[in-house]
Order: sequence, then C-alpha cells, then structure tokens
Amino acid sequence: MSQQTNPQGFDSIALASGGLDSSTVLSIAVDRGFRPLPLAFRYGQKHEIELDSLRKVTSFLGLPEPLILELPYQAIGGSALLGEGAIPAEPQDGAQAREEIPSTYVPARNLVFLSIATAVAEARGIRDLWIGVNALDYSGYPDCRPEFLKAFLETVELGTRDGATTDDTVNEPYWRMHAPLAEMSKAEIIQTAAGLGLDLSLTHSCYDPRENGLACGICDSCGLRKRGFEEAGIKDPTIYA
Amino acid sequence: MSQQTNPQGFDSIALASGGLDSSTVLSIAVDRGFRPLPLAFRYGQKHEIELDSLRKVTSFLGLPEPLILELPYQAIGGSALLGEGAIPAEPQDGAQAREEIPSTYVPARNLVFLSIATAVAEARGIRDLWIGVNALDYSGYPDCRPEFLKAFLETVELGTRDGATTDDTVNEPYWRMHAPLAEMSKAEIIQTAAGLGLDLSLTHSCYDPRENGLACGICDSCGLRKRGFEEAGIKDPTIYA
Repeated sequence: MSQQTNPQGFDSIALASGGLDSSTVLSIAVDRGFRPLPLAFRYGQKHEIELDSLRKVTSFLGLPEPLILELPYQAIGGSALLGEGAIPAEPQDGAQAREEIPSTYVPARNLVFLSIATAVAEARGIRDLWIGVNALDYSGYPDCRPEFLKAFLETVELGTRDGATTDDTVNEPYWRMHAPLAEMSKAEIIQTAAGLGLDLSLTHSCYDPRENGLACGICDSCGLRKRGFEEAGIKDPTIYA
Repeated sequence: MSQQTNPQGFDSIALASGGLDSSTVLSIAVDRGFRPLPLAFRYGQKHEIELDSLRKVTSFLGLPEPLILELPYQAIGGSALLGEGAIPAEPQDGAQAREEIPSTYVPARNLVFLSIATAVAEARGIRDLWIGVNALDYSGYPDCRPEFLKAFLETVELGTRDGATTDDTVNEPYWRMHAPLAEMSKAEIIQTAAGLGLDLSLTHSCYDPRENGLACGICDSCGLRKRGFEEAGIKDPTIYA
C-alpha cells in the first residue's frame, strides 16, 4: 500500500483559516496534546490576509507552517466571497435576516474542504479531523450543522480505504471528527481562546478588509466578532478601519 | 442569492475521464436527452492522454469542451497513480488479488470529485450528477460502492444550500445521482456503448501508457478492457504497444 510519509508526526488535520474560530480550534487541539496539521485553502478569496494571519497563529502555537492547497473555486463560482456580488453589511435585524442563507455561502465549501482534508489524512495514515463549526454558523450555513458532519463521517467511513477496511467487529468507526466549538457562542469561543492564552489579535475575521489590511468593521463577520468580544467582556484587540 | 450563470444550458454534471466507463455514461446521458457538462480533473496523473481522449469523446457526442479543473493531489499524495510506487500489472489470480484495495486507489478520490461536482452544480442551479461506477469497481474501490453513493447523497442533501432549503413537505430529495453502469460488467458496458454507437477507439483505459500514447496492454486496467471486449464478443479497437 503506497502511503505518503508523515515525518513531522502529525496526529490530526485541522481545517484552518486564520479566523477566530479555527484558530481557537488549533489552540484547543494543542492544549489537549494533539499535533494537528493546519490545512488551509487558497480558493479565490478576495484577499490573502487570512492566510497571513494563519501563519502567525500557527507560529504562536509552536506548530509548523500550514499546508495551503489551491482549489479551483474561481471556475466553480457562486459566492459573494469569490467576487460575485456585494459582501453584505451586517443585517440590522440579525435574527430575521439570518433565516436566509447568506450570499457569502460558498457552494459545498465544507464538503469540499472536509473531503480534501480526508484525502490528506488518509495519505498520511491520520484519522482525526478538527473543524471550527459552531452554534452560530448553524443558522446560516447548512454545511456547518452537526447533522451534516454526522452524515459526512458516515460517508467517509464507507468511501475511504481506511474506513472501509476497518474491522467491523470493533464497534468504533475509523474516522473521528472533533468540533469542539459546536455548542459555543462567539463570546464563549473568545473566552475559551483567551483562557488558553491565544493572542486573538493575530486572527482575522473581516470579509472585506481595506487595502492596508485593516478590518472594515462593518461587514457581517466584523459585526459578529465585535459583539462576541463585548458579550465575552474581553477587550477587542482588533484595529478596525 | 449570487449564482453563476449556465449559458450553455447544461442540465447535469457528469464526472468524465476519457475512459471507457465515463465515456459510456456520457453517451447514455445524451441518449436519454440530457445535456451533461463533462467535468474532469487534472490531479497529477502520470499522463494527460486521458484528457485528450475525453475531448475527442465529448466532440464525438456533440457536447461542448469539458470543464477541466486542477486539484492539488500532488501535495496530497498516497497513490501509485500519482507517481508513488509502481503501477501494478494485472494480477494473475484476479479474484484473490482483488480482495485487497489496489495501490492505484487514490485517497478519497470519488469523495473529492463528487464534492467538487456538487459545488459546480450548485453554482449553476443544477441538481443531477452522473458517475460511471460499476459492479466491477465495487470489489476494489470503496468509493465506488452503492452504499457510499447513497451516503454521499444524504450528506449533500444536508450540507448544501439547495439541498437544505428544499421544501421538506415534498417527499423527494433535491439532489439526484445517476449511476447507469452500477449493475453492469465491463462486457455489458462495452455492449451498451457499442449499441449507442459510441466510438470506443476514442476512449483510453491504460494506467501506464507508452511515450507514444499507446496503451501498455499489461496493466490492470488494460487487462480488464481486453477481457471486456472478449466477453462482449466485440472487436477491441485499441492499439496496444
């Protein structure tokens, strides 16, 4: 069986973006004694700032450089995050507006990201995946819901070499998904990160940063971040434009 | 909702490789009145001959150029098909050797391919997917089994905008998977393609073609193709090295 080596001794793959949520996941993984390979994607985002943030976060946590892979989302299309249509400002009436799926939804993004993560893991003999989905995401993005993650795990159990060849007499699936933020609000995520000593000023949330790299302070993602810090009772270290 | 246009009027996405199976699927789709967008991947295969074959097949069927997307499988690794380890010769005792998953297994390939196909479809408002998996594949590749495809469909139903927002009072899933070769042997696939008038000399099966493009005639895939034509009672138009 051909298998890529894993010389750096990673024991898990963590989807990472340099944002607040996935950076907190990396911090939690390290705190629990894991050595995750941070996996990020260049997929036609309007800016590269989040990948710069990710490198700062992984360095801060003592992890090696993230693995950054290119995905052909420009040819796939279908999202405001990929340059089609306007980035939405934070809705005035959050609850009502969030009943619809935002235009920043990227078609099948977490399905694609998790599928690639599974391939990266399988090539290295790794069976643990980390993802930063959380309760807030559920309302807007279908590919962040726990039932999606559960179905995904059942799919990879059937559709990968390592999942399919696992001894069925052992009553435990091969693949394991860690979603430690699943039940958390943004404020709880921020409190968790702060409690672990993560420097949140390194992380990036803004969908629409200024040319100088500063967060816009008005997009949906900036708004959620600002309110999260307020509710957490922690000073927001972000410098907004 | 931002949505990429679909000016060529495709009604489905077909995973296509220029091989015998997926070319037969394209032929079946066209015969049933569909207009599939052929979707192929450049993912670090040792050769590009199959994409040349695919262009010939789509042209033969009156379909537009295939959409060919790049995937970072070189950085993912883990397969003899991607230049790691030797391409296996056809096993002498096929039945016994096929109890193991071949070294030509590419980690999570159909999961990744179908996930990207789902994204391409969703960005274009398309809900029908075609794939050329067949009974022969089941024994070797876990990501070709019907139970994998079923689980995948349940996953995308939960994890995509279009699947998740489908009216639940209608007792029909949003996404549809067409796997018309599912129950067919290689001989039956060849008979089906021949019956539809597909020029099978345009298709390519060899894992390890010579520099002049000729099929090696000895790899697992060439062996299956040869025996398929023999069992179908149809003259093999392939020129072997």
